[in-house]
Amino acid sequence: MAESPANDAPYRLLDGVAFGSDVHVGPFTNLYGCSIAAGSRIGPFVEIQRGVTIGERCKIQSHTFICTGVDIGDEVFVGHGVVFINDKRPHAATAEGALQSVDDWELLTTHVERRASIGSGAVILAGVRIGAGAIVGAGAVVTREVPAGATVAGVPARALLSERALGSRRATQ
Amino acid sequence: MAESPANDAPYRLLDGVAFGSDVHVGPFTNLYGCSIAAGSRIGPFVEIQRGVTIGERCKIQSHTFICTGVDIGDEVFVGHGVVFINDKRPHAATAEGALQSVDDWELLTTHVERRASIGSGAVILAGVRIGAGAIVGAGAVVTREVPAGATVAGVPARALLSERALGSRRATQ
Amino acid sequence: MAESPANDAPYRLLDGVAFGSDVHVGPFTNLYGCSIAAGSRIGPFVEIQRGVTIGERCKIQSHTFICTGVDIGDEVFVGHGVVFINDKRPHAATAEGALQSVDDWELLTTHVERRASIGSGAVILAGVRIGAGAIVGAGAVVTREVPAGATVAGVPARALLSERALGSRRATQ
Repeated sequence: MAESPANDAPYRLLDGVAFGSDVHVGPFTNLYGCSIAAGSRIGPFVEIQRGVTIGERCKIQSHTFICTGVDIGDEVFVGHGVVFINDKRPHAATAEGALQSVDDWELLTTHVERRASIGSGAVILAGVRIGAGAIVGAGAVVTREVPAGATVAGVPARALLSERALGSRRATQ
Repeated sequence: MAESPANDAPYRLLDGVAFGSDVHVGPFTNLYGCSIAAGSRIGPFVEIQRGVTIGERCKIQSHTFICTGVDIGDEVFVGHGVVFINDKRPHAATAEGALQSVDDWELLTTHVERRASIGSGAVILAGVRIGAGAIVGAGAVVTREVPAGATVAGVPARALLSERALGSRRATQ
Repeated sequence: MAESPANDAPYRLLDGVAFGSDVHVGPFTNLYGCSIAAGSRIGPFVEIQRGVTIGERCKIQSHTFICTGVDIGDEVFVGHGVVFINDKRPHAATAEGALQSVDDWELLTTHVERRASIGSGAVILAGVRIGAGAIVGAGAVVTREVPAGATVAGVPARALLSERALGSRRATQ
């Protein structure tokens, strides 16, 4: 694993990132202490935090934030403006008023399995698993596990019914 | 059409952009191969991709992503953190495991007509038309056509009922 | 109040910002004409506009936009990709077709009181108050006041029922 990606781009910060071969990183990126495997592409305005692992041939699109505690399998698509979360009850300060530190909360891990696809604008809550080949609709807020192969959408995200079923459900509301 | 906007800002990337007169582009922007007509303003942290056309006197606010396949008419407002989409089934890799290329998916075009207004945080799915003067509420996920003059909101976005009707609907849920 | 934060980071723009002691500002930030009190931390890809005040020991996370008209109390957590709004009916241009200026709309102010916590991906509409210690769920769209101590979630954001109540409500839909 090299210390720099296959390409060069302006306005990017790379600090202690392990890159596989042929990784492409866009401009305006802030990546530190993470690992990005061969053939993956990271878009502009992306932040990836310490300890994150990204598999091979992934696409991580612009404006996305991937926090500590997330690991992403091979061939995963993460759309634009996706936000991951690793904390159930985020607070700025402790009850005593000190700025909250890494010791004051529980890190919940999130696993995105191979060939899953996360639509743009989705929010992924802390501690969920998104199964292999699952599809998360654009703008969904994922609050619990998404089984392998499932398609979910909405706020909170639920399994997507067929178009026909959705139509009749709407009609009766 | 000039090759640079009316103003100068640090930390921006402009590659092959056709600018009308009096265009203003913010810092931390990544614009390439697109066209931005006279009097429009582009906020910070914005990416606009190849082939996009932006009309006259538009405002494209910060943190917004406009993808290939989108054209935007005159005097359109696009809020902060808006994401456009141009693909129904995004994947990182083909079934054979090669990184997906431009030949492996169908580009769906999106048209935003003149004087439409798209609220902050909205997500616009691939292949929709947003009619002239339409209003898309903040945080909406637009999955189908928005008629000219309509106001839509929610996930998925639906025509907004009057406040009174919304009130009684809430009361009966 | 000093004119520069406690740390130094590349790729950031600071223009007329009043900093308290021990403020930390990330890279790729665009802050102007605002005030950030002691001990607060501002993440990457954040924009904070003129007139905004941020209290002591706040965390403003990456990709967040805080507009003119917002004031934030002490020890507030604002997650990643949060968008504030200060206008009920944003438009790019006036009815006469001139680019809208500051005189053509009404600024609505938003107050986030001390120790409130706003989840990632939330959108906060113009003119609301988020009370002390309130919690806004990730991905919520806040359209009206959130009382002190309340927890809200969803689109539009509503008071969160207990997990048990939510379970039975889902079961009957």
